[in-house]
Order: sequence, then structure tokens, then C-alpha cells
Amino acid sequence: MTGQLIAIDWGTTNRRAYLLDEDGNVVTTERDGRGLLAIEAGGFAGEVAEIRAKLGDWPVLLAGMVGSAKGWVNVPYLACPAGLDDLAGALHWVEAGRTAIVPGLSYSQGVQGDVMRGEEVQLLGATAAGLVPADSLLCQPGTHCKWARMEGGRVASFATAMTGEIFALLKSHSLLSDFLTGAVEDGAAFRAGVADGLSGRLTSLLFGVRASALLGLRSAQDSAAYTSGLLIGHDVAGEQLAAGQPAYILSDRHLGALYSAAVEMAGGTAHLVDSHAAFVAGISHIWKAYQS
Amino acid sequence: MTGQLIAIDWGTTNRRAYLLDEDGNVVTTERDGRGLLAIEAGGFAGEVAEIRAKLGDWPVLLAGMVGSAKGWVNVPYLACPAGLDDLAGALHWVEAGRTAIVPGLSYSQGVQGDVMRGEEVQLLGATAAGLVPADSLLCQPGTHCKWARMEGGRVASFATAMTGEIFALLKSHSLLSDFLTGAVEDGAAFRAGVADGLSGRLTSLLFGVRASALLGLRSAQDSAAYTSGLLIGHDVAGEQLAAGQPAYILSDRHLGALYSAAVEMAGGTAHLVDSHAAFVAGISHIWKAYQS
Repeated sequence: MTGQLIAIDWGTTNRRAYLLDEDGNVVTTERDGRGLLAIEAGGFAGEVAEIRAKLGDWPVLLAGMVGSAKGWVNVPYLACPAGLDDLAGALHWVEAGRTAIVPGLSYSQGVQGDVMRGEEVQLLGATAAGLVPADSLLCQPGTHCKWARMEGGRVASFATAMTGEIFALLKSHSLLSDFLTGAVEDGAAFRAGVADGLSGRLTSLLFGVRASALLGLRSAQDSAAYTSGLLIGHDVAGEQLAAGQPAYILSDRHLGALYSAAVEMAGGTAHLVDSHAAFVAGISHIWKAYQS
Repeated sequence: MTGQLIAIDWGTTNRRAYLLDEDGNVVTTERDGRGLLAIEAGGFAGEVAEIRAKLGDWPVLLAGMVGSAKGWVNVPYLACPAGLDDLAGALHWVEAGRTAIVPGLSYSQGVQGDVMRGEEVQLLGATAAGLVPADSLLCQPGTHCKWARMEGGRVASFATAMTGEIFALLKSHSLLSDFLTGAVEDGAAFRAGVADGLSGRLTSLLFGVRASALLGLRSAQDSAAYTSGLLIGHDVAGEQLAAGQPAYILSDRHLGALYSAAVEMAGGTAHLVDSHAAFVAGISHIWKAYQS
């Protein structure tokens, strides 16, 4: 295989490796479940050697939770505002000249702080590749949903919402567990949840999920979609979108459809962006910037 | 012992029995851990017989989750607005003429429903005993915090917030678990949380708890108090208190102090009310109303 760089998006649960050619095109890619939770202490160098054995002996750039206290090395965060050049200048080499970790970003306002690891490559790649304007609002739904404000192609500030994690907690461990077994799709129940979540008291609306089902006011089958809508509505409300304001959503199709619906209901305009293309563009630009 | 009535506040985890005399005064009271979770199916009649063996062969009134699907009998909710006379008229007799369950209340607005079991006795007892005005806002903090609007001494409407349950979920099962080990007291960290929770996006502020500790912006030791403040602030914000509006808090001292601080920060006026006295007054009035 002809390549030039191996890029690995290495998260807590999943890992995706890309072999890129000189023009930043993907030669091959593979995803597996060898996230941080699957790697034993001291096992990271061996993992990278295995990937090189498969994809070729190229330089390796890592991004994501692999650079956290629970990963290979705890790499210091880079403070916002930050761009691709800043990331390239702060690469943390775990194997001299061969393997480096891209630092995550931090943002703070007074004593209120926020952090990300891995998302910064997508965010900055999306602007570098022209997938989104240099000044724009980007959203990365998930366990911890990121909302990033880009200015001049750099990450100016961002906020993380525990949207996906709260849904998972409610589903697994709460009073609502028995009621959250239905499918979550964009439909009437989901949109009713968004409408309520955009304006109401989240903790009360959540209690209402069970109460409304008990009283026969809402079908238990709809409760999961409604609850997802509540949480995503609450999430989107926090951005206080102006009328028609574009929000660029980097996501898989399922979550992308849910967030798009919520953004539109909040008065914004939703645009879906290919998050894999954004990651590849970001990591290629970091590598070029490092070499130049 | 001289009594006239045995009243039992029977919840999921705890149970408190009161022997009351003809004037509704407490002759004796005892609390134990024999809540619903500790009682085997079919064991409720035997439990009541044991209590009668201790406290005397008096009529028994039960309130709380004992009247739910997970209790002795699933007693239908009474719809708001509802007063003590309505509860007295809807007693569910599980042992004819000897043992009855007080029904819980429901409230619905469109498809948004809410329910309570047990709290209604305290709420209505507080107004009946003159502990709070007949028209007032009452708050019962806890796992599921109730906010009830009383009109003419009846429960006109109410809302439940999962405040305590969400805190417990975050403490036991979330990304924040490691950060929520400190004490929760009314202090600077708690009040900073209330201030943020009164206005911000709850799910983002929660993520910020960990991020701010990681970045050294807030001590990990303060994180639990701050998080409790966030949730209680979010809870109080939902009531949209008018300037100086009184809120009557039926609670133990610890939660009472926290909610009082949050109510005052939101511009309201907090008054603490003895929740045991309110329960006793409520159950005595129900018994009198039933007999008359």
C-alpha cells in the first residue's frame, strides 16, 4: 500500500485507523473496538506497532482520549482560541519522530472550564477543507455533545453538554428505565420532546415521562423518543440560535437527523457534514503544517 | 397507650408510624427501614398486624408508595384540584373498616402528567394546621422534589423535579462520579452552583464540573457542593418566583437549608415548615373528615 501517514482517532470505546497518501486521500481505513478500555497499561506502543505491521511503516498521528490520563500519555490541553498550526506546533511525541499525539483543547471563562480530546481535529478539518465557513457554529452530537464557535478558521470557544450520557444514565439506572425501551426516531413524540425541552425545566419534564405514561397521557412506547427530544431540545436551547442561524452538524446519520430537526425547531438552519472527511482533512493539515 | 388512630407514612425505603390521640397529638412514633423494598409480596397485612400489636388495636391509615403498584394495592390517583375532604372520601379500604390507604394525587396539563403519593398528606396538613397560608407555594425537596401550588387550602397543581435522583445518578454512575465525593453544604461552592443553575444549560454546566476540576479552576473537593447547587438552582428556576414570593419548604434541616438559600438567591422568601407536624395534621384531618 502506498501511504505517507497513519492517522488514528482513538477514543475510549472505539478506534479508527486511516492510511493517508501524500495528497491526504484515504488509501484504507479500519475501525475496531480497541478503544482505551480494551488496552492494558503499557500496551499502547505494541498496539501502534501492530497497526504499522498492517498498514506500513509510516509516521503515526494519534488523536482523542489516547492523549488523556486514561490513555497513553496525559498530554496538556491547548487553550482556545486555537487553530491547526497551534496543534501542529504542540504535537506530543511518544516515539521520537515516529508517533505523536495531537493535544486536546481547553476553554475557560472565569472558573467555568471545558475540555475536548479528538473533536478539535474534526472541527478544524471541517473549516480547513471548506466543508463549513471559517466563522460558524459546529455541533458534534454524542455522549458528550460539543458546540464549537469557529472564528477565522480557529476554535474560538466551545461548550460540552452531557446529553448522551444523561440519556444513558436514565435508561440504565433511573426510575425511567422501564419506560425508555422504545425506539428513538425523528417523529411526533421526539418533536414533542424537543418543543418541551427547548423551554421547560428539564428535571421536571423528565419526571413527567413516567407520570404521563402511568396516567395514560403518553404511550410508554413513545417515551424514549420523547425523552431523547427533551434532552436534545435542552441542549439546542443552550445555544440560543438566532433566526436562520446555520448550525453545522458533524455526526452519523441517526443523531444527525435528530439534531437537525431540533435545530430547525429552534429557528436555526441545520447542515450535515461528513465527520470522517473532516477528521481526515484535519489530521492531514496538521501533518503538513508540522512538516513545513 | 391511649390512642385513637395509627397513621403510617410508608415509602419505598422508609416507614414511619404514629400513634395519635383523639386531639391528633402524637402519643408515640417510630421510624424503621421497612419500606416497600423490604416487604415481601403478600406481607403488608402481617406488617400492619405487627404494628397494631405494638401500638394498640386502632384504625390504621396508610399513605405513600404503599398505595402504588409496587405496594399493597395500586390505589387510583385523585385528580387535582383536591383537598382533605376529597382524600377522606376516596380512602381505599384494604381491611374493611380497619385499615385504609390514602390515595395519591395526579395533575395533568395536556399530555404532560405528574403524580405524587404521600406528599399530599403533608401539603394539605400544612394548610389545615395553619402552618402555611391557604394560597401558597410549597416545596418538598428530596429524590423527587415536589412544588405544589395551594389554592383555598387545596392542591391546585404541582410539578415534580428529579433533582435528588439525578444527583444520585451522577454520583454513582457517571463521568462525574470521581468528582462528587465532597460534602454538600451551603457555602460559596454551593451558591456558585445555584447562580449558574438558575440560568444556564444544565447538561453543559454538569460537564463543566469535571472539566473545571481537571483545569484547576475549581477544587475537586468543592465539586459536589457546586453540582448540588446547579441542580437545585435549575429546580428553583423552574418555579419562576416573583420578587419576594414566599416558598414554604417542608424538609429536614439539611435540604431545607440548601433550598432556602436557593430560593432567596432566586429572589423569593424561604420559610421552613415542620414536615412531620404537617403529616400528622393532614392525616388527623382526613380521619376526622372521614368520620363526620
